[in-house]
Amino acid sequence: MIRIGVIGYGYWGPNIVRNFHTHEGSEVVLVCDKNPKASERLRMAHPSIPFTSNPAEIVKSPDIDIVAVVTPVWAHYQLAKAALENGKHIFVEKPFTCSVTQAEELIELADRKNLRIMVDHTFLFTGAVRKIRQLVDEGALGDLYYYDSLRVNLGLFQHDVNVIWDLAPHDLSIMDHIIKEKPEAVVATGEKHLNGVEDVAFITIYFPKRIIAHVNVNWLSPVKVRTTLIGGEKKMLVWNDLEADEKIKVYDKGVSMSTNPANLHQLLVSYRSGDMWAPQVEQVEALRAETAYFLKCIEENLTPLNDGNAGLRVVRILEAAERSVRNRGEAVTL
Amino acid sequence: MIRIGVIGYGYWGPNIVRNFHTHEGSEVVLVCDKNPKASERLRMAHPSIPFTSNPAEIVKSPDIDIVAVVTPVWAHYQLAKAALENGKHIFVEKPFTCSVTQAEELIELADRKNLRIMVDHTFLFTGAVRKIRQLVDEGALGDLYYYDSLRVNLGLFQHDVNVIWDLAPHDLSIMDHIIKEKPEAVVATGEKHLNGVEDVAFITIYFPKRIIAHVNVNWLSPVKVRTTLIGGEKKMLVWNDLEADEKIKVYDKGVSMSTNPANLHQLLVSYRSGDMWAPQVEQVEALRAETAYFLKCIEENLTPLNDGNAGLRVVRILEAAERSVRNRGEAVTL
Amino acid sequence: MIRIGVIGYGYWGPNIVRNFHTHEGSEVVLVCDKNPKASERLRMAHPSIPFTSNPAEIVKSPDIDIVAVVTPVWAHYQLAKAALENGKHIFVEKPFTCSVTQAEELIELADRKNLRIMVDHTFLFTGAVRKIRQLVDEGALGDLYYYDSLRVNLGLFQHDVNVIWDLAPHDLSIMDHIIKEKPEAVVATGEKHLNGVEDVAFITIYFPKRIIAHVNVNWLSPVKVRTTLIGGEKKMLVWNDLEADEKIKVYDKGVSMSTNPANLHQLLVSYRSGDMWAPQVEQVEALRAETAYFLKCIEENLTPLNDGNAGLRVVRILEAAERSVRNRGEAVTL
Amino acid sequence: MIRIGVIGYGYWGPNIVRNFHTHEGSEVVLVCDKNPKASERLRMAHPSIPFTSNPAEIVKSPDIDIVAVVTPVWAHYQLAKAALENGKHIFVEKPFTCSVTQAEELIELADRKNLRIMVDHTFLFTGAVRKIRQLVDEGALGDLYYYDSLRVNLGLFQHDVNVIWDLAPHDLSIMDHIIKEKPEAVVATGEKHLNGVEDVAFITIYFPKRIIAHVNVNWLSPVKVRTTLIGGEKKMLVWNDLEADEKIKVYDKGVSMSTNPANLHQLLVSYRSGDMWAPQVEQVEALRAETAYFLKCIEENLTPLNDGNAGLRVVRILEAAERSVRNRGEAVTL
Repeated sequence: MIRIGVIGYGYWGPNIVRNFHTHEGSEVVLVCDKNPKASERLRMAHPSIPFTSNPAEIVKSPDIDIVAVVTPVWAHYQLAKAALENGKHIFVEKPFTCSVTQAEELIELADRKNLRIMVDHTFLFTGAVRKIRQLVDEGALGDLYYYDSLRVNLGLFQHDVNVIWDLAPHDLSIMDHIIKEKPEAVVATGEKHLNGVEDVAFITIYFPKRIIAHVNVNWLSPVKVRTTLIGGEKKMLVWNDLEADEKIKVYDKGVSMSTNPANLHQLLVSYRSGDMWAPQVEQVEALRAETAYFLKCIEENLTPLNDGNAGLRVVRILEAAERSVRNRGEAVTL
Repeated sequence: MIRIGVIGYGYWGPNIVRNFHTHEGSEVVLVCDKNPKASERLRMAHPSIPFTSNPAEIVKSPDIDIVAVVTPVWAHYQLAKAALENGKHIFVEKPFTCSVTQAEELIELADRKNLRIMVDHTFLFTGAVRKIRQLVDEGALGDLYYYDSLRVNLGLFQHDVNVIWDLAPHDLSIMDHIIKEKPEAVVATGEKHLNGVEDVAFITIYFPKRIIAHVNVNWLSPVKVRTTLIGGEKKMLVWNDLEADEKIKVYDKGVSMSTNPANLHQLLVSYRSGDMWAPQVEQVEALRAETAYFLKCIEENLTPLNDGNAGLRVVRILEAAERSVRNRGEAVTL
Repeated sequence: MIRIGVIGYGYWGPNIVRNFHTHEGSEVVLVCDKNPKASERLRMAHPSIPFTSNPAEIVKSPDIDIVAVVTPVWAHYQLAKAALENGKHIFVEKPFTCSVTQAEELIELADRKNLRIMVDHTFLFTGAVRKIRQLVDEGALGDLYYYDSLRVNLGLFQHDVNVIWDLAPHDLSIMDHIIKEKPEAVVATGEKHLNGVEDVAFITIYFPKRIIAHVNVNWLSPVKVRTTLIGGEKKMLVWNDLEADEKIKVYDKGVSMSTNPANLHQLLVSYRSGDMWAPQVEQVEALRAETAYFLKCIEENLTPLNDGNAGLRVVRILEAAERSVRNRGEAVTL
Repeated sequence: MIRIGVIGYGYWGPNIVRNFHTHEGSEVVLVCDKNPKASERLRMAHPSIPFTSNPAEIVKSPDIDIVAVVTPVWAHYQLAKAALENGKHIFVEKPFTCSVTQAEELIELADRKNLRIMVDHTFLFTGAVRKIRQLVDEGALGDLYYYDSLRVNLGLFQHDVNVIWDLAPHDLSIMDHIIKEKPEAVVATGEKHLNGVEDVAFITIYFPKRIIAHVNVNWLSPVKVRTTLIGGEKKMLVWNDLEADEKIKVYDKGVSMSTNPANLHQLLVSYRSGDMWAPQVEQVEALRAETAYFLKCIEENLTPLNDGNAGLRVVRILEAAERSVRNRGEAVTL
């Protein structure tokens, strides 16, 4: 039985607790939150799980194998570090850390102590992202051209981080999972309107082989949109995460160029337009699959796909995007 | 009776001819195109209008008051200049010219000769844009925060210009009409995948007062999208130009910040969420309204709102965007 | 403190228990289900509430004020009757009973014993239906012309009732709430394809004053649709219950007829087409509001709007529809 | 060269003229309309085609092979009969005639004189209906369960016919093309609100083998809907004719019933839920394909699929529906 301690019982923590507590091979043995109301909520949902307001009780407990850090991002590094130093595996909310330096230090520490890190890139475990990854792996889309994501809604405003750190980690972790190339540079633009942090931002990520990614995040949109276009040489797809049933539509559409045999300087464009196909997407609770997978990684000594390095890759782009947005789109090489 | 000569009878030219030929106070007296098939198409539609393949016959004709230049953009400057030099008013397809220098020269020439320039920013005359402009003018949206436009589809590839020069003029002319401030800087990113010109591009335009605009143009999208979000302090709107009936939706939604009276360092966020309202949008043929307006401007010696300077403002951003995209998002000050 | 016993802890029962158990002035003191697995589910969710498999323990308990009957419809009458005979108020799942006779008997019994009946017409307590009712009450729609509802999806097949008894009670209870007239006649058509009960059915209800209602219910639809059109003399509305945000759209559209003053035999039709307006709809858990309202009715000795008579009116139409569908659309007078 | 005379140059007539006049093997030699303004419109569009206000000039002309009757339905019979008597093939607007008797008489007359009748069931020649028919023919849907069509909008009010005769011919002609069985009975309900004819109507058509069809037509809807659900044993489809690109969506969804081997009295329901697929639909002008097909039928002496008998089958249902609606849903056996 793997024993888990959870630090942070706000919006997302209850889902972490519920999942780790109901898997066959694991149980949550202690939950911590600074807010005393969290104690009451925990008691209602899980009367048998003890509560503490002191995170040290979790990171130092000899009875805990995994520490789940489900706090605001500024607290991740210190809690994760203490947990690793005390020999615990860690499950950390996204974004992994506030900086590349912090992420690198945690990874190095975990490696040294042979501990596992999982960063909670939940979306990678959704039926939709798994299906997209499968289509890319099978070569159904052909060489990728672009990844273009729109993630906008009204609120929630964070006071300590801007819209990039709040919303873009979702897109960046998915993009990192779908595009196999290593990003080269980041250009970000944006604006602050209300509380001194960017509430609207546009991030471009350059990859080798002419692949380009773009992420549009906005806290000031009157409508909620969660749509990603992915264009490939052979097929293109639209993923609308707000659709109940047809989340992914794959279009047998494309463009190809050839040289006119009669005139080598003239390009011929041909368009291909065929059927559309919406593959059935597995209906699973992504967090359930992800937490089960972490338990398996620990039992079988495997490195999770969403390990510390995956977390680091996302933080590296966030850090670059933040620098770029401060300098009006200055290209930041990664 | 105002007499018009039209140069260019390809995709858009027939609409120009039909409109100028059927207004009460104007008639098309000569049409020119290099392509001999255009002659046949003209004869079928307007048997009484003569055709020439020599543009000089139009620009030099003593019987012509307005020359409409409906050619690819690279030919605009020379034809427009010749027409102005021969004392003709000009109606020029968008984008106005290939460069700021060309636009400035044409404007100066027209001023000197007291001639009118209209650049065919057709969208300004649609019911939708007129309604949006009215809402902004009335202050219904409050101070503007952002203008974010998505204009993507599969094709048409142009061989001589990239997707920015092909698709963005629509958005930039509308943005120029809606946002009263003068743009400060442009950051553009993009990528070339097929024929050596950018087919995917993302343009950010910075304005004073924290207004920011963004235009996403893409020739490689499997779906056609024509959606613009406009966020203001008081209200926000979504304009979906592909909707048949409810093109504009105005949301009584917003965010405001205040300082906590008990703790001056703490910001309070309050969200406002109310009704949505889709104002009826006038159903008119925009080009019909625009051409009628040009005739009126000439008769009453008025400066069109979409005059050479409006054309120049769009070209200035296009030129800056092209420079920026070549330098991976380098901010180009306007 | 009002004490509630709940009979039936399958799909819907847990919601009934959760709501009655968490209101300030009420608590659930005993839950019954034939299925022993229900006991386990109850224990997980509400460890403190005792469980029984014998409904008599609930209907006869001196410690219970309200019996909630959340069983299949065939069991409603007997359980409700026993509860009333033992002096309990009853909260009964829809449809109220299997027949008009049963409903009338329960109403008569409750009246005699001065007990309250509430039939769980949950939809009446949604923000959407409250808003529609408000618009009708205010006269915003003018005289009603028609009510046309589409409620289709794949499954759930019931073995004991057909699609009319399964899906139409929702629409009929809403229709009964919106249309103030008393229905005159019912015509229903439908077909059985799989298990010997109708899985597709179309019900027309005639009202005085030329109001007509129509309900299309289908268990064999590949897509889920929940859309109602309501047409009135002044305005018309579309209610799409699957929309997250804009459930109700009110159209300032209409048709009016007048007589041509020059020719009294000639009718002139005039269409009116104006703005569309999507009023904000209160986001509440309907069942929460409904259960709170029942407690209030009992405390203050009020007759609920969804009392036994409301339940009876729905059952009367269901019974008529069933007779009509058996006779290929024979009009059944109510 | 097949020579055509067209009677009726109102809303639809110009399309008939344009198509018959531009096919290779046919030309329109005379157009007739009572309205003198039609003459002017014809002259603008086709200066070379002569005009008459006397239909006798067309039906009696020795220079005409086909008479196209594009008038209101009440005039079809007399004009078509005169044309047939004068040895002309006829192309008649839908619905074919005002009554079964008229239709039968015209068919008998044409047979006797070996002339062809085509009824303008244009929808049969759309890419969408051809694709649906193909799917049915290939057995992709399996045995059909139901055909359910929704065709509603605001206006147009006809003064001489009700909404059934105005809108339902589209659906009935398509249904007749898709469902191979012979309909058995019709039940129709509806209501008159404004000008003395039904403006809202619901028609059920019973077929052998438990196939059921339903058509919902409404002139008083604030929104335009053109959606048809077709359910089969193996697959189900949704046809939304207002979608620009994905008109037909085929769902690999279904329900099957089996008997529990352990308990022969218990039915087991199993649901199947798979991918959705939107086949590319040919983009053609349906009327162009239909008119070309009529010319071919005449040249090669073939019986059109949309011949007089197809027209009669639709009229028979319309006549039955009208009788049924007058008697509040009385089932009319066909």
